[in-house]
Amino acid sequence: MATRAYAKYEGIFAHPSAAVETGLMSRLVMKFGGTSVATIERIRNVARHVKREVEAGHEIAVVVSAMAGKTNELVALCKDAAPIHDQREYDSVVASGEQVTAGLLAIALQEAGIPARSWLGWQTPIHTNDTHGSARIISIDGAGIIDGFRRGEVAVVAGFQGVHKDSNRITTLGRGGSDTSAVAIAAAIEADRCDIYTDVDGVYSTDPRVVPKAKRMDRIAFEEMLEMASLGAKVLQVRSVEVAMVHGVPTYVRSSFDDPENPKEGTLICNEEDIMEAQVVTGIAFSRDEAQITLRRVADKPGVAAAVFMPLAEAGINVDMIVQVVSDDGTTDMTFTVGSVDYERAFLILEKIKDKIGFSGIAGAKDVAKVSAIGIGMRSHAGVAARAFHALSEKGVNIRAITTSEIKFSVLIDEAYTELAVRTLHSLYGLDAA
Amino acid sequence: MATRAYAKYEGIFAHPSAAVETGLMSRLVMKFGGTSVATIERIRNVARHVKREVEAGHEIAVVVSAMAGKTNELVALCKDAAPIHDQREYDSVVASGEQVTAGLLAIALQEAGIPARSWLGWQTPIHTNDTHGSARIISIDGAGIIDGFRRGEVAVVAGFQGVHKDSNRITTLGRGGSDTSAVAIAAAIEADRCDIYTDVDGVYSTDPRVVPKAKRMDRIAFEEMLEMASLGAKVLQVRSVEVAMVHGVPTYVRSSFDDPENPKEGTLICNEEDIMEAQVVTGIAFSRDEAQITLRRVADKPGVAAAVFMPLAEAGINVDMIVQVVSDDGTTDMTFTVGSVDYERAFLILEKIKDKIGFSGIAGAKDVAKVSAIGIGMRSHAGVAARAFHALSEKGVNIRAITTSEIKFSVLIDEAYTELAVRTLHSLYGLDAA
Repeated sequence: MATRAYAKYEGIFAHPSAAVETGLMSRLVMKFGGTSVATIERIRNVARHVKREVEAGHEIAVVVSAMAGKTNELVALCKDAAPIHDQREYDSVVASGEQVTAGLLAIALQEAGIPARSWLGWQTPIHTNDTHGSARIISIDGAGIIDGFRRGEVAVVAGFQGVHKDSNRITTLGRGGSDTSAVAIAAAIEADRCDIYTDVDGVYSTDPRVVPKAKRMDRIAFEEMLEMASLGAKVLQVRSVEVAMVHGVPTYVRSSFDDPENPKEGTLICNEEDIMEAQVVTGIAFSRDEAQITLRRVADKPGVAAAVFMPLAEAGINVDMIVQVVSDDGTTDMTFTVGSVDYERAFLILEKIKDKIGFSGIAGAKDVAKVSAIGIGMRSHAGVAARAFHALSEKGVNIRAITTSEIKFSVLIDEAYTELAVRTLHSLYGLDAA
Repeated sequence: MATRAYAKYEGIFAHPSAAVETGLMSRLVMKFGGTSVATIERIRNVARHVKREVEAGHEIAVVVSAMAGKTNELVALCKDAAPIHDQREYDSVVASGEQVTAGLLAIALQEAGIPARSWLGWQTPIHTNDTHGSARIISIDGAGIIDGFRRGEVAVVAGFQGVHKDSNRITTLGRGGSDTSAVAIAAAIEADRCDIYTDVDGVYSTDPRVVPKAKRMDRIAFEEMLEMASLGAKVLQVRSVEVAMVHGVPTYVRSSFDDPENPKEGTLICNEEDIMEAQVVTGIAFSRDEAQITLRRVADKPGVAAAVFMPLAEAGINVDMIVQVVSDDGTTDMTFTVGSVDYERAFLILEKIKDKIGFSGIAGAKDVAKVSAIGIGMRSHAGVAARAFHALSEKGVNIRAITTSEIKFSVLIDEAYTELAVRTLHSLYGLDAA
């Protein structure tokens, strides 16, 4: 067996397939989601993707989700048994979905002539904290998987699940957790790259359903992807991008529906330094799941913001964009956004504390959207946001609120203008495909 | 919390519900099969059965199978992935069925106000050997379950599954293994009784579908039940009866479809000494899954039996009834039975060794049945079998072969006469209900 070259990814992966071209053996994690393993036929297709990489000489760990629909089915059974139920039991029930897929893919790989074995969260083990239902990974012991590599074995790891060390009980990482599993395992076994196979062929400059001219990016920086994911792009779970960034795991988003023998390019999420020429704006993200709340004539005294936002935080409601306008009479109008699912609950909480805090009334709107532009280049370019405000006003788009950070800005607008605003900004920053 | 009285079952269970009547706290295992947990509504019904026993002051471990149909579905997925597949992966896939039920029942119990938690094979742990697909239990650590009892918790144990200590991989016990799980757990936690809830209300003197006058027995000895199960009665898996007998676990077969608040009597499987008056014959069992093979004019020389049966044993084919008739010319006709599923395979094996062994031809029949009478009383009563041969011949039933043991005898007959033979023997030994 060839000696493994622990090549740092920067050199090898000038191009995502460079490792193959140079003939050096690499260690890869390949992750396949629920739609990619929805049937035995699709699981066989996954086996063909894995076979390609094995034959290229790579050591492979595959991370799988439950077959499409399975998780929802198991969740429904738990809810049917009791609307509010023990999250520890829920985790044990729901984690069975990935257990099934992992075993089936190991069988399919063996059938294709590739030695393979499945690894469950408690077998690896993948240790998490005890926040059942949305646990966080604490540590992963990659020794067993690496031992398997030495025997020429592909490791098939059940995604989404772990085990709490003290209680020895199964935990799950929350929806979309398999992406996080994949990236964390890649970090644990010092993989050269983590390939996320999904139903799209990469990360686009914006949603191609809204802007047909949207471009697939060859590369995007971790920070940009983190903002894209946080601001509404659904291609990767935010937590998985965080883990990839912290551990510097180059993560490659690509399509599982390509011809396994001749796959197309995807998008590499990597360090900023590995992107030749940073664009001012890389992508436009948007989210319609926003709601706006405005408190009228709030007394402008110290501690009032805390008095408003603490009760919301305690109820688990995330507050996003916050704008205050102080008027002459010493009161202020305070506007902020919450997720639209939390809108009614936030309203009720605020009504209760109205007299204590002292404001004249509450107004709100659910038909709002947040449109954001993301780009590392903003750091070194002035006036990027100002150009946007001008372009939007020319199109008659009214801006309700603005927030900015080092590498992104967001505007809150009427939901009806979402597509118009996204297309306007996409063109403005030169993102339209030729 | 009351101190547990470690009352030996003989005294307490003069009647299966005596423990309740005396007010002493007991420790019970309750096992529910696939049809009893087929839907959430039925799982709630199981929770009501458990609640009744908890409220009577007992410590309870519940063992559950997969929801009806689930195991078949998972087996089909494995077969679809590869007709011949790694049994270790198969075990991991298939064991997920019981994992789901255990979690759901724990949730349903909690919803009914009863503290409960699920235990998987690797969590308990239930250690087995590494014969994946049909593993045997080596040891069970009951400490965690008993700790739970001290906290007032019901233990919900996933049946059918264990873990191999060295490899840390999931094993399954083979079809019907949940009965074995239940009895073995009862032995491990020193339970006073193991209640097997099933879709019939006890053990009958024979199959009530064949003999409407069949009687539900109040009690049956372990040895008798073992023969009944081995000879075709399907109410309990043979291995579970073996474990119950070896460890002296009184096992109570009862219906899961009774009113949980007012359950009916079942059948207690217990030591011979606990049965007041042993009947000569307790029950009539029968099996249609038999096939007869006859080797004509086998050379009657030493080692010929081994030469015939060793190749069959090596192919995993069980040989049952064996009859030899030596003729004047120094050859013998050798007749024996195999399971009907193994018939064609056995034929092929025997054809291959025909010349080596030296016999003139092979004859066989698949339309045969084995009818057996079982009773501990046979030990002390002569002529029990002879009466049967007489009664059967009077009805025109031709006997192809006979085997006897201390507490049972079996006759091989034409399958068409099965019902007639069963009814004849059932009446002959006074088993018909009044």
